[in-house]
Amino acid sequence: MALRTIEPQADSHFLSVEELRVRLRQVGDERYHHRHPFHLLMHEGRLSRGQLQAWALNRYYYQSRIPIKDAIILSRSDDPIFRRAWRKRVLDHDGDVTPEGGIERWLRLAEATGLSRERVIKCNEVLPGVRYSVDAYLDLVRNRSLLEAVGSSLTELFSRELISLRLGALRQFYPWLAGGLDYFEARLDQAPADADFALQYVAEHAHTRAEQELVVQALREKCDILWAQLDALYHAYVQPGWPPPGAFSPEEP
Amino acid sequence: MALRTIEPQADSHFLSVEELRVRLRQVGDERYHHRHPFHLLMHEGRLSRGQLQAWALNRYYYQSRIPIKDAIILSRSDDPIFRRAWRKRVLDHDGDVTPEGGIERWLRLAEATGLSRERVIKCNEVLPGVRYSVDAYLDLVRNRSLLEAVGSSLTELFSRELISLRLGALRQFYPWLAGGLDYFEARLDQAPADADFALQYVAEHAHTRAEQELVVQALREKCDILWAQLDALYHAYVQPGWPPPGAFSPEEP
Repeated sequence: MALRTIEPQADSHFLSVEELRVRLRQVGDERYHHRHPFHLLMHEGRLSRGQLQAWALNRYYYQSRIPIKDAIILSRSDDPIFRRAWRKRVLDHDGDVTPEGGIERWLRLAEATGLSRERVIKCNEVLPGVRYSVDAYLDLVRNRSLLEAVGSSLTELFSRELISLRLGALRQFYPWLAGGLDYFEARLDQAPADADFALQYVAEHAHTRAEQELVVQALREKCDILWAQLDALYHAYVQPGWPPPGAFSPEEP
Repeated sequence: MALRTIEPQADSHFLSVEELRVRLRQVGDERYHHRHPFHLLMHEGRLSRGQLQAWALNRYYYQSRIPIKDAIILSRSDDPIFRRAWRKRVLDHDGDVTPEGGIERWLRLAEATGLSRERVIKCNEVLPGVRYSVDAYLDLVRNRSLLEAVGSSLTELFSRELISLRLGALRQFYPWLAGGLDYFEARLDQAPADADFALQYVAEHAHTRAEQELVVQALREKCDILWAQLDALYHAYVQPGWPPPGAFSPEEP
């Protein structure tokens, strides 16, 4: 239900794939959450165990909604070829013959911070601000065009770089987390493959410059959704450090 | 789409109207946004003009969605008597033969802070966190039972007291706002009448203790929605004072 503002473009020519990629990359440079102060603190080793618990617990809600988001996208395509490609994402997160998927791996990360998986799975200590942001993502993929839904996944264009940086930082500064990093290891390969497919899709299915701009705008809104989750974490657990009534409080600061 | 946790109740007897009112009041005491640090600063005269601009601009998005929220509730009732009573709310906000309703009054408040109405109406500088919170309110009234939708409006049980306090504080500390306070003046009478009707409705339509608990939970979630808006404002404009990419920045601090 978000109001959208499409910025007027100085020119209106149809973008080549390469130009489109540059436009998308530019959105990432400006708005992707690698620039968020919460992540900067994390990567400088300046978060406490309690703050990393809060991050793992809250981001679990995001992780748990990812295969639901992808199932919504699956449900919106009438093309079996698209669906066969896209359903990989559901398997990546839910697991296949074993539950060894992204959600299970994220739970092991949360356990490595010292939380019980039962506590994390309940989701009843998640910050409302995180919940609303994640739900806004489901809203976007449900109510916009399929083109925009796919476009919103393009943050994966930027995630490999962030995850590589993060893996190094987490190993260096939080060695007690070492047993919980499989999630990120797996995403190093999964995310770029997904991003390539999605980029190809939007390049082929945006038939006008206006449609290309809708893709850019969807990516921007997805960046806002990721950013807002970290704003909520920062407000609650870093500075001023006021979790709202009922939200998670770390046992150790 | 929020996950909900209904706290187990020590007893499970059906509550009298008076007991239900006490339970609801208790939620308000603990969770209503009269306790939020942003409001405490406001009422102590410690917000700058720029911070009040940010508040007026962001809360405009909430105000602008209120009659949409009420139209959704209208659309969900098959009882003409209920709809006749509830549609008062749409008129209160949209105006009647003239546009002199709550939305117009809020715009005059925003203008009194020094913003142009065009800038406010555009909504393109609203914090994403505020937008997602407000949209979560629309989601609630659209996707839960009508009983819960009406229950979520019960924050109006507490608003008269907050508005009385606020009117005094705004007049005392921000005298340049004096021409913009009609919104709150009007709500002093509107809100209690609305709350009485909604309380009577939930008392008559919650037929089991479990349904009464759904009402309590809906009120709690509505409190979270109001609180999260102020968390986003506090993070962006008070401390640490980092608006997300693309959001409103006051011209004067």
